[in-house]
Amino acid sequence: MPKIITISREFGSGGRELGKRLAEELGIPCYDHEIIEIVAKQEGLNPEYVSKVSEKFYPSTIGNRFSISYTSTNQSIQVLLAEREVIKKLASLKDCVIVGRCADVLLKEMKPFNIFVYADIASKLERCSKRATTEEKISAKEMEKKMKKIDKERASYRALFTENKWGNKEGYHLCINTSKKEIKQLIPGIVEYTKVWFKGE
Amino acid sequence: MPKIITISREFGSGGRELGKRLAEELGIPCYDHEIIEIVAKQEGLNPEYVSKVSEKFYPSTIGNRFSISYTSTNQSIQVLLAEREVIKKLASLKDCVIVGRCADVLLKEMKPFNIFVYADIASKLERCSKRATTEEKISAKEMEKKMKKIDKERASYRALFTENKWGNKEGYHLCINTSKKEIKQLIPGIVEYTKVWFKGE
Repeated sequence: MPKIITISREFGSGGRELGKRLAEELGIPCYDHEIIEIVAKQEGLNPEYVSKVSEKFYPSTIGNRFSISYTSTNQSIQVLLAEREVIKKLASLKDCVIVGRCADVLLKEMKPFNIFVYADIASKLERCSKRATTEEKISAKEMEKKMKKIDKERASYRALFTENKWGNKEGYHLCINTSKKEIKQLIPGIVEYTKVWFKGE
Repeated sequence: MPKIITISREFGSGGRELGKRLAEELGIPCYDHEIIEIVAKQEGLNPEYVSKVSEKFYPSTIGNRFSISYTSTNQSIQVLLAEREVIKKLASLKDCVIVGRCADVLLKEMKPFNIFVYADIASKLERCSKRATTEEKISAKEMEKKMKKIDKERASYRALFTENKWGNKEGYHLCINTSKKEIKQLIPGIVEYTKVWFKGE
């Protein structure tokens, strides 16, 4: 059975970067936005549309998240179901890292290694501020409010299909605090931990 | 400044073993019960008495914990203050691992690397059952009750001097779930993570 690593994260904690870098070091793919492209192609839908539906349920970018007002419809549920199937299919093919999308719950039967990435508010604000495009620049206070909103939505979505509350350490195998740290610096430790975690599995 | 690693842990999660093994791999001392010996010698007290006072505040063994009924007195507070000073002194001398005793809060100024070790109930029960002496053997139900009581006491004691609640991931740098895992197996990953964490500090 392929070895699956899932990354859940607080908005701004650097979880996505961590997933990408970890996958790179392990020489395996990392699926994040790629999932949207595949679903769009498969369902014959506009990737932007799929992205918007996906954003509604798995918010991950402040820019997109707050420029849309999308209400759930049957079609959006279809998109999400397709997304789930794509995740399951990808995970069945080979070792990989999957960022977000409640993959830890969705792929439970495959016994994934589940990482949760978090940080203090100051570090998250700094990270968000650094990566924001000019048009996304907002005040720290606004940013903090939006970050919290996104995390709250992530938690709500997760609550739909598992009792393991989003962010509760009990639901994950390793919880990494990235406050005041460069993701790049931590990677060798995470790579090694991932390797030993899968030993004997 | 010496590099300090602190281990906080749920009772039965294997945190103490993890601390010992991590220290061994890093070639540095691990302080746990050793602190009691030093305090006893320094204060001219019976190590057993110091241990009992310490147990009252930092419960760590089911056997001792439940065979004593000790009420706080001025002397016991003196012992705890001496213990704190010993911890600070030890930490100032050289790199080390300190298990329990709220060392993460106590040594905050030294920017320690703070690990929290936890596990699911089944794994903790199994671990406790394995290490219990014949006379400590009790039913799983009793054991679970006692485990919870000890953790609750740890949490209460911590609440005396920090707002960071015991076990809340935000207060630690790395939270390690040892459920269904051998501590020994995880050590190389923890060693590597510890090394990269201190890089650039």
